[in-house]
Amino acid sequence: MAAFPGDEYERRLERTRARMAESGLDVLLVTDPANMNYLTGYDAWSFYVPQAVVLPLGNEPPHWVGRAMDAESARLTTVLPHDRIHGYADDYVEHPVKHPMQYVAELLADLGYGRGRIGYEGDAYSFTARNLQVLARELPEARLQDAYLLVNWVRTVKSPREIEVMRQAARIVERVMRVAIETVEVGRRECDAAAVISEAQIRGTEEFGGQVPANPPAILSGDNAGTPHAAWSDRPFLPDTATCLELSGCRHRYHCAMSRTVWLGMPPDHVRRLADATAEGMEAALSVVEPGALCQDVERAWRETIGRRGFSKPSRIGYSIGLNYPPNWADHTASLREGDTTVMEPNMTFHLMLGMWMEGWGFELSDTFRVTESGYELLADVPRQLFVKG
Amino acid sequence: MAAFPGDEYERRLERTRARMAESGLDVLLVTDPANMNYLTGYDAWSFYVPQAVVLPLGNEPPHWVGRAMDAESARLTTVLPHDRIHGYADDYVEHPVKHPMQYVAELLADLGYGRGRIGYEGDAYSFTARNLQVLARELPEARLQDAYLLVNWVRTVKSPREIEVMRQAARIVERVMRVAIETVEVGRRECDAAAVISEAQIRGTEEFGGQVPANPPAILSGDNAGTPHAAWSDRPFLPDTATCLELSGCRHRYHCAMSRTVWLGMPPDHVRRLADATAEGMEAALSVVEPGALCQDVERAWRETIGRRGFSKPSRIGYSIGLNYPPNWADHTASLREGDTTVMEPNMTFHLMLGMWMEGWGFELSDTFRVTESGYELLADVPRQLFVKG
Repeated sequence: MAAFPGDEYERRLERTRARMAESGLDVLLVTDPANMNYLTGYDAWSFYVPQAVVLPLGNEPPHWVGRAMDAESARLTTVLPHDRIHGYADDYVEHPVKHPMQYVAELLADLGYGRGRIGYEGDAYSFTARNLQVLARELPEARLQDAYLLVNWVRTVKSPREIEVMRQAARIVERVMRVAIETVEVGRRECDAAAVISEAQIRGTEEFGGQVPANPPAILSGDNAGTPHAAWSDRPFLPDTATCLELSGCRHRYHCAMSRTVWLGMPPDHVRRLADATAEGMEAALSVVEPGALCQDVERAWRETIGRRGFSKPSRIGYSIGLNYPPNWADHTASLREGDTTVMEPNMTFHLMLGMWMEGWGFELSDTFRVTESGYELLADVPRQLFVKG
Repeated sequence: MAAFPGDEYERRLERTRARMAESGLDVLLVTDPANMNYLTGYDAWSFYVPQAVVLPLGNEPPHWVGRAMDAESARLTTVLPHDRIHGYADDYVEHPVKHPMQYVAELLADLGYGRGRIGYEGDAYSFTARNLQVLARELPEARLQDAYLLVNWVRTVKSPREIEVMRQAARIVERVMRVAIETVEVGRRECDAAAVISEAQIRGTEEFGGQVPANPPAILSGDNAGTPHAAWSDRPFLPDTATCLELSGCRHRYHCAMSRTVWLGMPPDHVRRLADATAEGMEAALSVVEPGALCQDVERAWRETIGRRGFSKPSRIGYSIGLNYPPNWADHTASLREGDTTVMEPNMTFHLMLGMWMEGWGFELSDTFRVTESGYELLADVPRQLFVKG
């Protein structure tokens, strides 16, 4: 029932172990739910309580540890032998004294790592300050080492099977974006548009059912069109306003993201000018993508191009994207921005996100691309234009 | 544009400051997005990067600090004076060297807390191990003190206005559950049911538009009916199986949760017996709810009742519920379980969640209730029965 066959996970474990060896780790404590899924297949909405994959450096299967009621999900969704699945009793959950990391520490000690070099994901959402404090207290002789992003960097280069799943997500987002552009209309409530868009995201296609993306639909309209992460409201769409749509298809927790902008009415010249400059900047950015290019090269091509048109953007223009859970679909590794010297490799995948948030209005254009042997491939295909409606 | 009028936030700040004074704190660093929203109104999907509300003990407005691109959301959604909104530059985000907590630490020092007693939310998802390490490094003379759940406990007793919003969420979940029971059908894909359910959640009612709940629809069917947090799949619903539906209405990020179970076909006797025992256990649990009762009393009444029918449940039967963001709608304070001696007060709200996950099948029944002056009030009204279809 895992999303991929066993040999896919074997290769992921091998590549992760190679980085563990470089970092001098005996064992890695993986708490990021996307990384747990990546290494074992584990997929459940249980990451609001502490849980982990324990990956020994040696050539043996990892362990899953989590709440007892989720152990059955581990049996159903992972490729792990059942004796590697460890559930803790329910009174560890949100208890004033007991903490699940005590159970994890005991497991690590039982496995012989009480004096080992243990990697942890120090800046992952799922690894709280107290998690580290409890581990340090319970394993006073262990050497705890921050290995944040170790697995994320492994994940940054996708396998052919992962690319295939992202292409399935691309088929979904193509459908979603068409539905979204259709549904944004003067007088309709923003929440009704969000409802229809979410329906399309989760239904997916006849061949590929969808999942709930790590970010909800961003529907930035009217006053909110300059606020990239605003929530939708009960308000209706208004004439003569922009609506920025940042959406994703999601398949087996893999994302293909896309942004397009709808203008209700006749767009004024300054909106058309920004739309044209952004599209031109996107072409310029994409034209430098190839193996060996640096992430900062892509941003520079964009910046110089829109600069000639009199525009600028103070934030990064994209990031590595793939497998993730809420609150965010990014891999948290490479960014398309000044100073990022990550070297592009085939099968890296990026969300090139050109969000132009102006004072009181905005324009967005974004696509997800794969680095190929010689350039780039856009995963999904929707016209890159300002959509003008009635 | 905040969800509540200003005096509502004033009262919340007062109650929070009273607890800060008891804990000897000069200032509280609030990073849990639900707590940030609770204290200021701030509402945006920006909590995948570090952000905080800084609440001084003295009678002055709090500060919002976050990514520069989200400062406009802070201006639009909070009751804060604009000079209290601080945005950090984009290159702090996911940077190999710079960390947003350096900016937060600088702000705390500028505000005069370099040697102060600073509370932090040590076990909140949003407060990583590295967040604390950076704060401790940058503020070597400050006294950093774990104040996890301080605001959550304030939130546990709802105001009349919060109850009103939870009643709006209740109107939504009544509609959602009817749609869900209708859509579960032999041969329909699980993802198609999830799509229709999500649509209903987000559309809300004509009066009250919906939001995306902190937990996605749980649709546990067939093999998954014994796995509480499993994802839906592309598989069709099968005859002679249970489907457990754990859903919520969500309004202004407040939740009213509910679970019901559908049986496709003629339910066997052991299913009916469990359904009857669970309903009887729920009545018994609710009958002891009143101000002054302890949370553990509710669980004991349940346990004794279902025990007489030969059933048991190894996990807690509920928790305080209200305002939250993904990954979870619980307040993370009081639990309905053995050993929890929280004293019930009027306007506490609980999700009484009777999930009976058996080997390869399951049954769920749950409702959200409010503690009243003399007993309890169920917020939403859907018949508490096993729904038998086709």
